[in-house]
Amino acid sequence: MNKLIRKTRGGLTSPQGFKANGIACGIKGKKSPDLTLIYSESRCVAVGVFTKNRIQAESIKVTRSHLQNSRAQAIVVNSGNANCCNGKEGVRDAERMALVTADALGISNEDVLVASTGIIGMPLPIAKIERAMPMLVNGLSSRGSSLAAQAIMTTDTFAKESACNLEIGKKTVRIGGIAKGAGMISPHMATLLSFIATDAVITRSALKKALRDGVASTFNRISIDGDMSTNDSVLVIANGKAGNRRIELGKDSYTLFSKGLKLVLSELAKKIVTDGEGATKFLEVKVLKAKSEKDALKVARSVCESELVKAMFYGEDPNPGRIASAIGAAGVPLKEESLHILIGDYQVMEEGRFVFNKARLKKVLKNKNIFITINLKMGSASGFMWGCDLTEDYVKINANY
Amino acid sequence: MNKLIRKTRGGLTSPQGFKANGIACGIKGKKSPDLTLIYSESRCVAVGVFTKNRIQAESIKVTRSHLQNSRAQAIVVNSGNANCCNGKEGVRDAERMALVTADALGISNEDVLVASTGIIGMPLPIAKIERAMPMLVNGLSSRGSSLAAQAIMTTDTFAKESACNLEIGKKTVRIGGIAKGAGMISPHMATLLSFIATDAVITRSALKKALRDGVASTFNRISIDGDMSTNDSVLVIANGKAGNRRIELGKDSYTLFSKGLKLVLSELAKKIVTDGEGATKFLEVKVLKAKSEKDALKVARSVCESELVKAMFYGEDPNPGRIASAIGAAGVPLKEESLHILIGDYQVMEEGRFVFNKARLKKVLKNKNIFITINLKMGSASGFMWGCDLTEDYVKINANY
Repeated sequence: MNKLIRKTRGGLTSPQGFKANGIACGIKGKKSPDLTLIYSESRCVAVGVFTKNRIQAESIKVTRSHLQNSRAQAIVVNSGNANCCNGKEGVRDAERMALVTADALGISNEDVLVASTGIIGMPLPIAKIERAMPMLVNGLSSRGSSLAAQAIMTTDTFAKESACNLEIGKKTVRIGGIAKGAGMISPHMATLLSFIATDAVITRSALKKALRDGVASTFNRISIDGDMSTNDSVLVIANGKAGNRRIELGKDSYTLFSKGLKLVLSELAKKIVTDGEGATKFLEVKVLKAKSEKDALKVARSVCESELVKAMFYGEDPNPGRIASAIGAAGVPLKEESLHILIGDYQVMEEGRFVFNKARLKKVLKNKNIFITINLKMGSASGFMWGCDLTEDYVKINANY
Repeated sequence: MNKLIRKTRGGLTSPQGFKANGIACGIKGKKSPDLTLIYSESRCVAVGVFTKNRIQAESIKVTRSHLQNSRAQAIVVNSGNANCCNGKEGVRDAERMALVTADALGISNEDVLVASTGIIGMPLPIAKIERAMPMLVNGLSSRGSSLAAQAIMTTDTFAKESACNLEIGKKTVRIGGIAKGAGMISPHMATLLSFIATDAVITRSALKKALRDGVASTFNRISIDGDMSTNDSVLVIANGKAGNRRIELGKDSYTLFSKGLKLVLSELAKKIVTDGEGATKFLEVKVLKAKSEKDALKVARSVCESELVKAMFYGEDPNPGRIASAIGAAGVPLKEESLHILIGDYQVMEEGRFVFNKARLKKVLKNKNIFITINLKMGSASGFMWGCDLTEDYVKINANY
């Protein structure tokens, strides 16, 4: 780890000038937190990346339009209702959600971004959000990260926060964030929301590139682009309170900021995977010596998302033929006779032949964190994916959500 | 249904001149049938289609080479061991399997096709197969279809057979087959094996085209090409005993034969889906008015294979937003505002808006057979996929196979 980057506590509100809060407004029932507000004392540079799903939540449509000037000062988020497939009324409700937040904060409604997660196709109970707004704003606190993280959860079992400090010149720049995931994430359409705050002074283009690159090697390693949910959103707002010399593309400070942001995103992404619905194990699939990164990722995905592979790790059943089959199913050119597979440090396949001892492999499978390394010996590119095992609880959770 | 085609009993051995048998040779334990033999009294025209997985079982390699002359007289199949990732020894064992069968039958070993299904990466217990061969051949019977169907099963819960009669000129032509599937089939790599016998007089090219076209609209509608298992094989052998005027491409008799074969394949495919591991419901997803058939199939697959959609049908939980999300996730151009979704006859989405009553939809979800119709209003192409629900039992079965 770079000496100029340090993990820290405080999550979303660790950067200067940010406050947050999370409360129950009644969307999910009386006591379950379901409304989050993130607020900066001053106007921020703001950027976002969104789902590539062809059906997008009404809240995303509104946020995209409010982001056109790359400025924002607050983010309001509800859980329990996706405000998706709700047509014009949904757009009106999302706009209203931004407006009542803006009014309560005394800022412009265009400076409020909105996000939603939950059930699709139900009208957003906007009256509940309106009624709760004074209490939500009133409770804003510079230590509100955890409350904010809790109120965006759906089937998540724990709140996800992460933060780090960077030394840029003589100044300390802070980056902090929260996220929610759950669902199996990897295979299909669980909503991923993440909100990142930083007090860095940074240009819009630098922030945008850092976010895109960061998401590519973190959140996108736990989710198929084409399979994203209707509501997936990652937003970053930067208020400049750190007073550092402005971070711009091409400068050393950009490289450092970019690493810091990636650290926060990657911690959040790993927490999401670890909290996959019903999951008991974390899987990392690394593919080495592929012809291209694209090939490496295809193979890593195919293995990481194979229901048979995932169920095998849950059952701790030594049946690595399923890994070989998933590798072949990726449709990437390969030579069976040059294929190597390791689970942890234990080599199970050598030059296309299985070489494992069942009892010994069974012991390796008992680990909570499973690292699969696949060497294709076809080229020099590599890639990885993160996932989790498939359990009966996943089905239980999703049969009655 | 065409008057010239009639469903019938007898399965694989309903065509004239075919015998079959299935016994326990000890691969799966003492009493579980695991070895099947299919035999024609005379040499057949033979064609096959195989998995597109980049890793292919050793048995497939041998069968492909024996099929080069498009002739065969017997098929020998074991279950419990995939003979895959077994290298040169695996090829030698598959060749040996063909040879001992040929010797016992008094035919050429090049006229024996082999297939395997089961666990990958374990040496084929060829000695057990050799020892069992006299008993296997001895029990060959023109009523042996059920035994043959049972001995190719792995996690299947019932044997799958189908047959039909065709009237071609004044002759009756028979087509019969068996299949095994299980696994969730649709999403990932459960092995699909199917063996079809016919007494038709038919050219190699006509038989090949009828098989390819038939598989495209039956077995390929329950399985992703790229996700096929290492062992998937569909073989058809035709012995000409019906004495019909030779079926050739372009003739009316070809169209009729083609329909008959498709009927048998489609019955087997539906049985496979119905018997998906742990499945309690059959799903059919039909996509109408897509821009192209490719688009239609992409959308149908995305819905049919969404774990969230499948778990919802299992739970009978009225949450069709998951269908909308899976449609959007297919990555096919669509207009949200022109999207229509029906479950059975009940319209749940109209022009992109949900219009269902929860209680009424809950009743529709109680059906064993679920038909989802998606109208994209983008063009004039259509396509369908068959699938099943996702249950806790699926995970249980696959955590300990």
